Amino acid sequence: MEQGLLHLYWGDGKGKTTAAMGLALRALGSGKRVVIVQFLKGGNSGEIPLLAQLGAEIYRGKAGQKFVFQMTPEEKAATRELQNQNLAAAMAQPADLLILDEAGSAEELDMVDVDLLKKAVLERPAECECVLTAHTPPQWMLDAADYSTEMKCHRHPYQKGIKARKGIEY
Amino acid sequence: MEQGLLHLYWGDGKGKTTAAMGLALRALGSGKRVVIVQFLKGGNSGEIPLLAQLGAEIYRGKAGQKFVFQMTPEEKAATRELQNQNLAAAMAQPADLLILDEAGSAEELDMVDVDLLKKAVLERPAECECVLTAHTPPQWMLDAADYSTEMKCHRHPYQKGIKARKGIEY
Repeated sequence: MEQGLLHLYWGDGKGKTTAAMGLALRALGSGKRVVIVQFLKGGNSGEIPLLAQLGAEIYRGKAGQKFVFQMTPEEKAATRELQNQNLAAAMAQPADLLILDEAGSAEELDMVDVDLLKKAVLERPAECECVLTAHTPPQWMLDAADYSTEMKCHRHPYQKGIKARKGIEY
Repeated sequence: MEQGLLHLYWGDGKGKTTAAMGLALRALGSGKRVVIVQFLKGGNSGEIPLLAQLGAEIYRGKAGQKFVFQMTPEEKAATRELQNQNLAAAMAQPADLLILDEAGSAEELDMVDVDLLKKAVLERPAECECVLTAHTPPQWMLDAADYSTEMKCHRHPYQKGIKARKGIEY
C-alpha cells in the first residue's frame, strides 16, 4: 500500500484553492476517489459542479451569507456546527484524496473543532493523500506537511480596484 | 467588453500547473472557451483527458521523450518547431482563457520563438484572459502580469527520495 502524503498550500497569493481543485481533477483523471470539504464556502464557484459531475464527493456550505465577524454568537455556533458535520461526513467516506479547503481559516476563525480537524488530517487512513489550504497555517500544519508550498502574492488586480470575476476568482 | 488579465504562476514550488488547470476547470464551469498549450509536455497527466472531455482545446506534445539537454541539434530544432506550431494553432482558436503552461521554460530552453510567444501573450484579443507558468520567468512576464504569484517550495517529498506519483504529480 502506498503511503498517502500531506500537501499544504498556504500564503496570500492567488492559486491555493485552484491548485487543490486542479489536483482533485488530476486524481479523478487517474481513477482515484476524491472527497472535498470547503470550509466557510457556499456560493457558486465554477469548478464545483464539474468536479461533482466527475465523481468527487463535495461537502460545503455555511449558514447564511455573512462573514464570520458579522455573525451573532448563535450564527457562529450554527456555522461551526455545520462545518463540523461536513468534516465528519467527509471523514466517513472512503477517499484516495481528501481535500480540506480553507482548513487554516476554519481553525483561525474557530469555525471547526480543532481536535476533529487534526484527527481528519493526522489520523487519516495510511493510503489517503490529503491537501490543506491556509492563509496563515497553524504550526501543526507546517510541521506535518510533506509538501509545503507558499503562494506569495507579488501582484494582484484587486490592488488596482478590480473586483472578483466569475470563472476566474470563483 | 471585459478586459482579460494576465496571470503568472512562477517559482520552485509544486502547484503552478495544477493551479493553471484548476483555473481551466473553473472557467469551463462558467461556460468559457479554454485553450491550453503545454510546452515540452507529452505523457499521460491525469487531468488532460478530463479537460478535453469538458471542452478545452489542448495542444501538447514534444518530439520524443528526451529532455532538451539530451537532444541532438536536429531533435532540438524539430521540438522547437513543434512547440511553435502548437502555439500558432492555439492562437488561431477563439478563447476566453488561454493557458501557456511552462511558457517560461520553453523560452529559457530556446524551445519557442520568443517573438511569437510575446505576440500570443501581449497582443492577444483584449477580452482574453491569459495564464503563464514559469520556473524562473523572464522579466517581460513579470512586468506584464496583472497577477503574479510565486510558488515557493518550503518542503517537497523528492527531498526524501519519493518519486513522482500518478494522479498526484502527473
